[in-house]
Amino acid sequence: MSSHAATPAASAVKPVVVVVDTFGGPIRHHNPELPLIYWDDAAVTRGDGVFETLLIRDGHACNLERHSKRFAASAALLGLPEPDAEYWRAATAEAIQSWPKDVDASCVWTLTRGRAATNRPSAWITVKQIPVEHLEQRHLGVSVMTAPRGFSVTTTPDEAAPWMIVGAKTLSYAANMAALRHARSCGFDDVIYVDGDCVLEGATSTVVAAQGTALFTPTPGGDVLPGTTQAALYQHAEWKGWDCQETDLTVQQLIDADSVWLVSSVRVAARVTRINDVHLPAPANEDKVRRMMFAALS
Amino acid sequence: MSSHAATPAASAVKPVVVVVDTFGGPIRHHNPELPLIYWDDAAVTRGDGVFETLLIRDGHACNLERHSKRFAASAALLGLPEPDAEYWRAATAEAIQSWPKDVDASCVWTLTRGRAATNRPSAWITVKQIPVEHLEQRHLGVSVMTAPRGFSVTTTPDEAAPWMIVGAKTLSYAANMAALRHARSCGFDDVIYVDGDCVLEGATSTVVAAQGTALFTPTPGGDVLPGTTQAALYQHAEWKGWDCQETDLTVQQLIDADSVWLVSSVRVAARVTRINDVHLPAPANEDKVRRMMFAALS
Repeated sequence: MSSHAATPAASAVKPVVVVVDTFGGPIRHHNPELPLIYWDDAAVTRGDGVFETLLIRDGHACNLERHSKRFAASAALLGLPEPDAEYWRAATAEAIQSWPKDVDASCVWTLTRGRAATNRPSAWITVKQIPVEHLEQRHLGVSVMTAPRGFSVTTTPDEAAPWMIVGAKTLSYAANMAALRHARSCGFDDVIYVDGDCVLEGATSTVVAAQGTALFTPTPGGDVLPGTTQAALYQHAEWKGWDCQETDLTVQQLIDADSVWLVSSVRVAARVTRINDVHLPAPANEDKVRRMMFAALS
Repeated sequence: MSSHAATPAASAVKPVVVVVDTFGGPIRHHNPELPLIYWDDAAVTRGDGVFETLLIRDGHACNLERHSKRFAASAALLGLPEPDAEYWRAATAEAIQSWPKDVDASCVWTLTRGRAATNRPSAWITVKQIPVEHLEQRHLGVSVMTAPRGFSVTTTPDEAAPWMIVGAKTLSYAANMAALRHARSCGFDDVIYVDGDCVLEGATSTVVAAQGTALFTPTPGGDVLPGTTQAALYQHAEWKGWDCQETDLTVQQLIDADSVWLVSSVRVAARVTRINDVHLPAPANEDKVRRMMFAALS
């Protein structure tokens, strides 16, 4: 992975912003130093839109199909027009054309309900460098605080509650950001949400525990967002002979596992080195597991 | 109120957008036809900011002090710098200077965590016409669907859960918007959230029931946002001799009341004419109650 670390030269790469035509017309490059969004866009007035964050590596977008599918599912939950997967793929390829191949990047797709004045969705793609702390956490791991989410989902998918959009990756992320700020103010790097003893998910990641030759992750659904990176990891790990399970997990089971990982698109995998007051020492197979996690996205 | 209704001439009033300097410098008028917000502003990437919506009437902002206090409380919950109430008051006065006095307007204050690139909060004020449907609903009332919120707040204010920001009026409003869209697709104008039989609040309003010479509203706190308009109404109504109570309310109690109202800053008060399948006829004192509600904001 060393070839993908941030270098002084890399730190000078300018972000790329392209505006996407939701009717399928040509994309337009936008100067990142200029304002892009109007005051009456639902993205800024109500957090009313969806997004996906993709890893750009070796000049291509990783795990593209799963991101496309979740993007479409999020849009459907919010009643936004279905994004054309092929068009977004092409627009992403165009956006990263000038990006240096040896520098990992973070690519964000955004689709919003758009301006009140035009009643037409807004969409754009950004490509920027990965924060240095995320690159470091790939190697150094993360210390994690557990936290109750503060609310419980009381509606099951069977009930007619189409306004419950917890399964959508929306722009309404303020609570997650508040949880992360709080964890940092307590000296932790990240948060794992719990419901009583039951493990849910990270603030911006999926929790995966490794034990022997098995992987465990909390069952997605309800207030656990299906993880695109975890899905890619599971497919790859099963092919490698690992037993991959979605199940109920307790905090104590995390502590007792060989290793615990937060997996997400851009940071990919960060080993949890501490849960609350408990240090989690590196297992003998740390490098092997980490290599498998990164390989799953290639 | 007829002098405040939308007129053909009024429909031509251009929105006003002013950029607020969070360090207290001069405000800057911004062309509403040009983009304002950058691609990396936390408002658009994470719904990470707070807002207030104020009614502009007869050339001044109504209920200013309560909005200022809630704005400051929301900012504090999100760890944003405290807005200077006096500065925002002056900026609002400047923004509405050219607005015609006989046209009601909706004024929105927004304060966000700002751009990732600058690490400095963004802030702006917009003034625009009130949607015609809101003006109509003041007179014609609203049909309302009850809906479970889909989640329960499980953390009490006593617990250390600073990431629970349900008491803050944040930009992360996508779920409320989804609930409103669903209600409209079912032929209703608005939503009242319920927890079992217990009434919580409207999607963007506070529920108030009138019975005899008493007013009732659900106790704020938890997932019921304290209502600035309801607070102004209660102060005025108590002065007029009404008995004003915050209490637990059931849907059946709403149905049995003389009248039920959704109160909010800009629509002010809309009588509920129907809850699910039950029509709520106008009470004999409808005009008297409505006049009191509008007078409370003057």
